[in-house]
Amino acid sequence: LTRTHYKTTQHIQLSSNILSMKMTPYHKRLLFKRIAAGGFTSVVLDPVRGVNFESDEVKACIVSCGGLCPGLNTVIRELVCGLAHMYNVNNIFGIQNGYKGFYSSNYVAITPKTVNDIHKRGGTVLGTSRGGHDTKKIVDNIQDRGINQVYIIGGDGTQKGAYEIYKEIRKRGLKVAVAGVPKTIDNDIAIIDKSFGFDSAVEEAQRAINSAHVEACSAENGIGLVKLMGRYSGFIAMYATLASRDVDCCLIPESPFYMDGEGGLLQYVERRLKENKHMVIVVAEGAGQDIIAKSIPASDQLDASGNKLLLDIGLWLTHKIKDHFKSKKMEMTIKYIDPTYMIRAIPSNAADNVYCTLLAHSAIHGAMAGYSFTVGMVNGRHAYIPFYRVTSTRNKVKITDRMWARLLSSTNQPSFLRQKDIDEAREADRLTNKPPLPPVANQNVAK
Amino acid sequence: LTRTHYKTTQHIQLSSNILSMKMTPYHKRLLFKRIAAGGFTSVVLDPVRGVNFESDEVKACIVSCGGLCPGLNTVIRELVCGLAHMYNVNNIFGIQNGYKGFYSSNYVAITPKTVNDIHKRGGTVLGTSRGGHDTKKIVDNIQDRGINQVYIIGGDGTQKGAYEIYKEIRKRGLKVAVAGVPKTIDNDIAIIDKSFGFDSAVEEAQRAINSAHVEACSAENGIGLVKLMGRYSGFIAMYATLASRDVDCCLIPESPFYMDGEGGLLQYVERRLKENKHMVIVVAEGAGQDIIAKSIPASDQLDASGNKLLLDIGLWLTHKIKDHFKSKKMEMTIKYIDPTYMIRAIPSNAADNVYCTLLAHSAIHGAMAGYSFTVGMVNGRHAYIPFYRVTSTRNKVKITDRMWARLLSSTNQPSFLRQKDIDEAREADRLTNKPPLPPVANQNVAK
Amino acid sequence: LTRTHYKTTQHIQLSSNILSMKMTPYHKRLLFKRIAAGGFTSVVLDPVRGVNFESDEVKACIVSCGGLCPGLNTVIRELVCGLAHMYNVNNIFGIQNGYKGFYSSNYVAITPKTVNDIHKRGGTVLGTSRGGHDTKKIVDNIQDRGINQVYIIGGDGTQKGAYEIYKEIRKRGLKVAVAGVPKTIDNDIAIIDKSFGFDSAVEEAQRAINSAHVEACSAENGIGLVKLMGRYSGFIAMYATLASRDVDCCLIPESPFYMDGEGGLLQYVERRLKENKHMVIVVAEGAGQDIIAKSIPASDQLDASGNKLLLDIGLWLTHKIKDHFKSKKMEMTIKYIDPTYMIRAIPSNAADNVYCTLLAHSAIHGAMAGYSFTVGMVNGRHAYIPFYRVTSTRNKVKITDRMWARLLSSTNQPSFLRQKDIDEAREADRLTNKPPLPPVANQNVAK
Amino acid sequence: LTRTHYKTTQHIQLSSNILSMKMTPYHKRLLFKRIAAGGFTSVVLDPVRGVNFESDEVKACIVSCGGLCPGLNTVIRELVCGLAHMYNVNNIFGIQNGYKGFYSSNYVAITPKTVNDIHKRGGTVLGTSRGGHDTKKIVDNIQDRGINQVYIIGGDGTQKGAYEIYKEIRKRGLKVAVAGVPKTIDNDIAIIDKSFGFDSAVEEAQRAINSAHVEACSAENGIGLVKLMGRYSGFIAMYATLASRDVDCCLIPESPFYMDGEGGLLQYVERRLKENKHMVIVVAEGAGQDIIAKSIPASDQLDASGNKLLLDIGLWLTHKIKDHFKSKKMEMTIKYIDPTYMIRAIPSNAADNVYCTLLAHSAIHGAMAGYSFTVGMVNGRHAYIPFYRVTSTRNKVKITDRMWARLLSSTNQPSFLRQKDIDEAREADRLTNKPPLPPVANQNVAK
Repeated sequence: LTRTHYKTTQHIQLSSNILSMKMTPYHKRLLFKRIAAGGFTSVVLDPVRGVNFESDEVKACIVSCGGLCPGLNTVIRELVCGLAHMYNVNNIFGIQNGYKGFYSSNYVAITPKTVNDIHKRGGTVLGTSRGGHDTKKIVDNIQDRGINQVYIIGGDGTQKGAYEIYKEIRKRGLKVAVAGVPKTIDNDIAIIDKSFGFDSAVEEAQRAINSAHVEACSAENGIGLVKLMGRYSGFIAMYATLASRDVDCCLIPESPFYMDGEGGLLQYVERRLKENKHMVIVVAEGAGQDIIAKSIPASDQLDASGNKLLLDIGLWLTHKIKDHFKSKKMEMTIKYIDPTYMIRAIPSNAADNVYCTLLAHSAIHGAMAGYSFTVGMVNGRHAYIPFYRVTSTRNKVKITDRMWARLLSSTNQPSFLRQKDIDEAREADRLTNKPPLPPVANQNVAK
Repeated sequence: LTRTHYKTTQHIQLSSNILSMKMTPYHKRLLFKRIAAGGFTSVVLDPVRGVNFESDEVKACIVSCGGLCPGLNTVIRELVCGLAHMYNVNNIFGIQNGYKGFYSSNYVAITPKTVNDIHKRGGTVLGTSRGGHDTKKIVDNIQDRGINQVYIIGGDGTQKGAYEIYKEIRKRGLKVAVAGVPKTIDNDIAIIDKSFGFDSAVEEAQRAINSAHVEACSAENGIGLVKLMGRYSGFIAMYATLASRDVDCCLIPESPFYMDGEGGLLQYVERRLKENKHMVIVVAEGAGQDIIAKSIPASDQLDASGNKLLLDIGLWLTHKIKDHFKSKKMEMTIKYIDPTYMIRAIPSNAADNVYCTLLAHSAIHGAMAGYSFTVGMVNGRHAYIPFYRVTSTRNKVKITDRMWARLLSSTNQPSFLRQKDIDEAREADRLTNKPPLPPVANQNVAK
Repeated sequence: LTRTHYKTTQHIQLSSNILSMKMTPYHKRLLFKRIAAGGFTSVVLDPVRGVNFESDEVKACIVSCGGLCPGLNTVIRELVCGLAHMYNVNNIFGIQNGYKGFYSSNYVAITPKTVNDIHKRGGTVLGTSRGGHDTKKIVDNIQDRGINQVYIIGGDGTQKGAYEIYKEIRKRGLKVAVAGVPKTIDNDIAIIDKSFGFDSAVEEAQRAINSAHVEACSAENGIGLVKLMGRYSGFIAMYATLASRDVDCCLIPESPFYMDGEGGLLQYVERRLKENKHMVIVVAEGAGQDIIAKSIPASDQLDASGNKLLLDIGLWLTHKIKDHFKSKKMEMTIKYIDPTYMIRAIPSNAADNVYCTLLAHSAIHGAMAGYSFTVGMVNGRHAYIPFYRVTSTRNKVKITDRMWARLLSSTNQPSFLRQKDIDEAREADRLTNKPPLPPVANQNVAK
Repeated sequence: LTRTHYKTTQHIQLSSNILSMKMTPYHKRLLFKRIAAGGFTSVVLDPVRGVNFESDEVKACIVSCGGLCPGLNTVIRELVCGLAHMYNVNNIFGIQNGYKGFYSSNYVAITPKTVNDIHKRGGTVLGTSRGGHDTKKIVDNIQDRGINQVYIIGGDGTQKGAYEIYKEIRKRGLKVAVAGVPKTIDNDIAIIDKSFGFDSAVEEAQRAINSAHVEACSAENGIGLVKLMGRYSGFIAMYATLASRDVDCCLIPESPFYMDGEGGLLQYVERRLKENKHMVIVVAEGAGQDIIAKSIPASDQLDASGNKLLLDIGLWLTHKIKDHFKSKKMEMTIKYIDPTYMIRAIPSNAADNVYCTLLAHSAIHGAMAGYSFTVGMVNGRHAYIPFYRVTSTRNKVKITDRMWARLLSSTNQPSFLRQKDIDEAREADRLTNKPPLPPVANQNVAK
């Protein structure tokens, strides 16, 4: 359709009605033939293309890494059940507590029975952790234990790790498929339409916003302030705001704001309280980091080891707003709610359950065909995407786009933008819409 | 892309970032110019194209018709708030209890304040009813009261009614825009991607399925049977089944089944109980109507007035299954749950709230530009669709398609199909994919 | 205090702070001494009084019987965890699918680990069934397998069965303690203050009442009708009505009503619709059975085996009300909701979880001391009650009492009573307040 | 029964079935006669005893003060509906935003219609605030506006304020009844059995504990830490812990604990992680204030005005535990959840809705009879209690009592107590059980 559309549909997919049917040998041959025929440009990086696994030779393992996200257990369950029911694979192991589990813990056998009910619980039954990636040690262990399918669920950093593992495996010439399932509650992974768990998170965020609204309405000049997830991308904050209809101001990392003076946040808060007696503010955790940074001595922004501290925008705003009204001798009440862990830990909702199932099945089909890739929906279709594609950029709210315009219209908040800001944003978008990377090297196989 | 894709993208849409922004006079002129320039083939039926309303002349009314569906109140709220906040329209009236309210009740003034919290409640604050459509009386009243924008929320039949109203208005040469917002909890309205409330319904259905699962698991040879909405289309049953992972059999109108003999339902139930000791069946209300019809004397299928009675597939199955096991002297327990009204009556979830907002705003922009149409997402974009397009066919689950294949793979249920059935279904699909109607008459305006 | 109070406090209890502490041998001796000293008249029936179990000799089993009720799994969990953690008992078995499981299935070993999370699920992990009681076979199996503590969770009939088992055990001179945990979602077990699961059921019933309210409000002359549990006692209906504030009429078995004529239900419904345009009716399943019986030929009230059929008051009322308004040519809509299985199957709420824990611990302490009894709260204190006491009468709503008066005041419904009815009810209450049975035989030990 | 029992039953109550029935003039006279006859020692402070209000002379007002608590709106609704429906009182006003609303805002007329649905929302529609009590100004306004019934919903401090208002009214000889409805989410108001909203709070707290459990289980050596309400009394923490079964340690103000060394918290945490790999800690906000105080320079504990700051035990513990394991070089993860505002702001559950209704009706009956008092359940009966009785002491968890023993047994946590501590606690309890105040002055009227 448009150029954007075209660009992403390079990542074509196992089309048609074959996917996720019970695969007869006939179907399987058909599928592999199609893949071999090059219908899938996205999977070109794979060295074992065209080589497919027999059910009884498969020894699969699953690992989950990074922060919690609704749906992790559903993905795990469906990987296990899908392998077992669709391909008769019965040799499946769980890696415990993230990447480091590859080399520092036992591998636990998992079966459809052991995972049967886990999708009703939040978190991940495999455990998770950040970091711990040691490519050599991991591949050593994969090799030693005879694992030949590795399913890796995790975010940006985790997918980068998966790419490293994939490259090492290729270097050693192992017959091992690496399938990434991208996980990001913030919905900030590039190229894919939406990450699993996002819907559930937006739904659960309503509870916090409702509480903030009740607290605000029950006080004179009451303000409810909710901090939601989103380090670099304000999708949760934006959709939660649009869904709630009770929010008067939404602050996200993509749209810089300022506190003081004409058109600033404090002026808006003041006006809103005068008009309406109460208000609700939603702030993404990554919003306004530049303002806080300016207001705090640089030395206080580092921890003992000299690392940059995350500065809590919620607490900071709470104090700033309190101080402002104190100085104006205007009575008000502000209640600050941080529901982060209560949102991350819920089980996935119905829509996410369906989505997780599709992602898991898609990953299985690709891995069984011998490919290495990250799975994802792209423009409404299931695609196999080269690892580097999903990690090289980040998905962000476009503040020149319709959805953000709708939000501004719905909250009535100031845009905090001058024409210059808008022009710059448009230019940035224009650049982003260019293919972010040179065309996939061997796309000619697609012929 | 494909021919199917092409067909629907004829219904192009108010593209760009203009939509739902605060409309400056400049933006408005720009928008109307684009519409006038023919960018929107879908709205060609409208006689007042190019004529746009000034805020202070608008007198709008809103009516909701047919059965309840999550999100009705959100659509009503956003129509009111959108008109008021985006276009400064303050003359908005609610028609009470469906079409008949046009001529038999008072019109109630509604303001953003009166609808502020209604999206948190289920049902419709305007009331609703079936039938009551009397084109002449309705248009008489519209004319008499000086209404010039009519927003009509309702299903298939309601949209047909809207088309009649539109034609009568056109005949009389009135300057009145008619905007339909299609409502169907069953998701069976053609052309549009998804109907509002569907997501919420699938989510709430999980509760009933969970209960059925608990009842089934707590008994020896326990069966939990859940009837879900879906007279002609099994979408709710299919998605609720995929989301739950606890369902062993899903029956929908699109996929005929049979009870007895090899490959029949009773055989499957028996096998499943032997393997697993319990099972959950989900049945769409429209499934198996042909089988029941055969099993009941024709005279019992008519009510006192000779109308065809709806035959309750849930009760019927319950008795059939009980009888079967009684005759086999096998002990079992079956619990039948009909959650229909408990699902219809919930407030919409976060995802539906966002969707309802977008639909309402889209409807407002089109009506303000003087067009008459039904709104809807088509291939991921907001479109203005001629009335007759959404009412001339019905959206159905394609049993030759991937999603149904996934369901079969997930439940392990028999497909109940012979090769002949499949071939017929494919042929039917092929026919459906042909443009169901001659191309829109004056699509040449699109040039 | 009052005579009523006095009567029930005969069932004194393990007072003091000893209960549910970690029992040191010293504490244990102290407890048994106190029991032996006769502080507990309720447990006098037990033949093994004063005999206590050593941890390592205990071989316990748990069975759940009858219909589902929120909290079953919590009781099971806490029996297992309590025995293991408080008394170091590790020989615990689950009887599957009710009484018949004693002689027709394997006994399954259960440990704190296997039951760790079951309180978060509805239903019973042990399975349940009605009937299947065969005293001789059951006690044979208890004896053969060396079981010496039997925990029996179930209603009226189940507790009668427990009494039979207890008597047979006594006859055979076995050292076996039988502990009953009364279960009745209807709250109709006599003497005890409240049954577990009742609170959760009332809470969950709100969901159905809300739906009925939404359906009723969204139609002109809309009626929402909800049938709730309560074969002989209307407690759930009464409390659910009081909690909701949306109910206009509550019908329970204890308060007879009539349909036609002055002061009848139909007249009230008609008046209410005229005043308010919509109404919600809650009916307990056991209400109005006499009226239905009169309206249906006797032959239709029996099933194939000649057993009395349960007549569905909900469906019957729906038809009656529809017919009434049809004959009056008044348009109306009625939606009938039966949430029974959706209520029964939920997990217990926080209050019930605490209550189930206390009941389970109380049962364990009594059984470890060698007693046989039913546990329960009586006047706010944990008591050990002879089996026959809880089964010889039934707890009912007193329609001459305050709570029912509050309900009438809250709904504004007619009382359907004439002075004669009230006098009779009072007289019945007076008689009930007499000790329903001769004083416990050896209450003299209480001195 | 026991001396404790006797003591509190001095606060006898409007017994019998009269209460909350529709009051006929006959009933009313009967009630007042009984009150006049002195059946109610609790209400002796009232100067207008025996004087009753006629419906048409009543001009009532309602105020809510202090922090949010589930059920506030239900109490307000039932006061309004009860006055209107039971006594035909139609002159009812809402005081806005707490005590200061008496003299600084308009009084808003409220009717059953305006409050019809408010019990489904959290917070208080009247608004609330802390402080603002100015006895003289308040009574001036009551007098000026002809108010003769004042309903005051609020905690400890608010009830003290009500007592001051009552005394001033008495001094001025006004015919005004003052009825207090005690509100405390912490359940720390003395004498009464349980405060409204407590049940709902414990229920909602489960959500936070579940999240903490999920976070803890999904990490290696994961700790979930939840701070719950309870400045002086740990009831919410204790019951939430007992209800959850997932908590490994519960810290409350009544049971002092220590961090370091043998038997300290850190040792327990370490042991628990070694055994179980994860744990959940629940801490009441008032717990451990003494330890924090010691660990922080006195100057940091005061705010700018020199007031004592509340020290956040949750954050403090988080840091302490992190530091401990860092120094031990043991990897672990701790997630801290503070759900306070999300709990306070929920609507009341079914059990609390019933309770709020009874409290409101009880308050109305007493005020209509001309009495001034605080209402509450005492030993399971509705009582009228002199103001000073509920404010002179505070309800606390007895750590020598059964419930705390059950908690210790359930969590396996150390008691942190030495024998000396226990003896002191017992002695304190013994003293508390003495009548805390001289016997009510004119209790002789009870004869």
